[in-house]
Amino acid sequence: MPTVQFWYEFASTYSYPAAVRVEPQARLRGLAIVWRPFLLGAILGQMGVTDSPFNIYPAKGRYMWRDVARICDGLGLPLNRPDPFPQRSLLAARTAWALAGQARGAFSRAVFAAEFGHGLPIDQPDVLAAILAELGHAPEAVLAAAGAPAAKARLREATAEAAGLGIFGAPTLITADGEMFWGNDRLEQALDWAVLRAQDRGPTPGPTD
Amino acid sequence: MPTVQFWYEFASTYSYPAAVRVEPQARLRGLAIVWRPFLLGAILGQMGVTDSPFNIYPAKGRYMWRDVARICDGLGLPLNRPDPFPQRSLLAARTAWALAGQARGAFSRAVFAAEFGHGLPIDQPDVLAAILAELGHAPEAVLAAAGAPAAKARLREATAEAAGLGIFGAPTLITADGEMFWGNDRLEQALDWAVLRAQDRGPTPGPTD
Repeated sequence: MPTVQFWYEFASTYSYPAAVRVEPQARLRGLAIVWRPFLLGAILGQMGVTDSPFNIYPAKGRYMWRDVARICDGLGLPLNRPDPFPQRSLLAARTAWALAGQARGAFSRAVFAAEFGHGLPIDQPDVLAAILAELGHAPEAVLAAAGAPAAKARLREATAEAAGLGIFGAPTLITADGEMFWGNDRLEQALDWAVLRAQDRGPTPGPTD
Repeated sequence: MPTVQFWYEFASTYSYPAAVRVEPQARLRGLAIVWRPFLLGAILGQMGVTDSPFNIYPAKGRYMWRDVARICDGLGLPLNRPDPFPQRSLLAARTAWALAGQARGAFSRAVFAAEFGHGLPIDQPDVLAAILAELGHAPEAVLAAAGAPAAKARLREATAEAAGLGIFGAPTLITADGEMFWGNDRLEQALDWAVLRAQDRGPTPGPTD
């Protein structure tokens, strides 16, 4: 099954609808998603950007919230702004890296729902603990793993890898042939690309009769 | 016929495919387009941004060119980068404001085709003169009008109006009810919105039988 990397940032508004949509859209196309949370703030910081562009430029921020509201309306998703915005995403991202595979995806979707659906502060351990418990995890154990050197290192390495790939925003999808697609609004295009390129690399069909 | 404002910047890559698509997509929906060129650089300058973000942030610039290439590929549009990028768009924008209605739209599409289809320098009067001649205008007269106070004032006023509307990027579409949509990738959404809101404000239908 071809895989597509889904790079996302827990503080990112557009990562919310993308996180909701990416698995069902991938399943429709026979693709598997690799969930890769990273710290966009660290990459922006290296670019010399020290706050969210949506805060630095008020007109851009006003538009973004309206645009995200239209997107959520169309998907039937609740939208409540967390305060402050952007949220500090370090703990959620480390916790995601302490989980694997589908568990990481399910946790990530639940974090986005808490943050942007209910406006909850995702930098609070008790908010994450409630999410973990709801998903059937032992919250203390997972949060302990999130604070351990391994999860910290995985997040640091993922963020460095994202920067090395040229990622500068979230969400970003990367197909197996290295093609990059930025934004919730490129999600279907990225997945369609992955399907077509996987077919290109598939076994040569025999002659038809 | 409901109208939609199409705000664009001649130096903007994403304004190129949008300018090609906006009239046929509007026609399909029974909408009329008002062509409103403005100087995005002036607005970005007021925001403290003194070069194209695609130049300031190389990763963002690399991605943009790849993304625009995919868009143009899908539309069968040629893409050749003008050098330098962004082009100085002042003369083209003043010239567009010296024309009216459909003539402004046709001229604008031809400028984008010259700039991004053929990589031509649109700050050169002879490039614009060739476009005007091809479209059946008297180039000297139109370029003289472009340099006259009235066209300069209209461009200045349009740019101030764009800033006042909260426009911070190009292309931007604004519907009659004031809804804003940024980007070539929001073009269909903007036009669909205009159709639905125009229906909302239309005469109340009589009882059906």
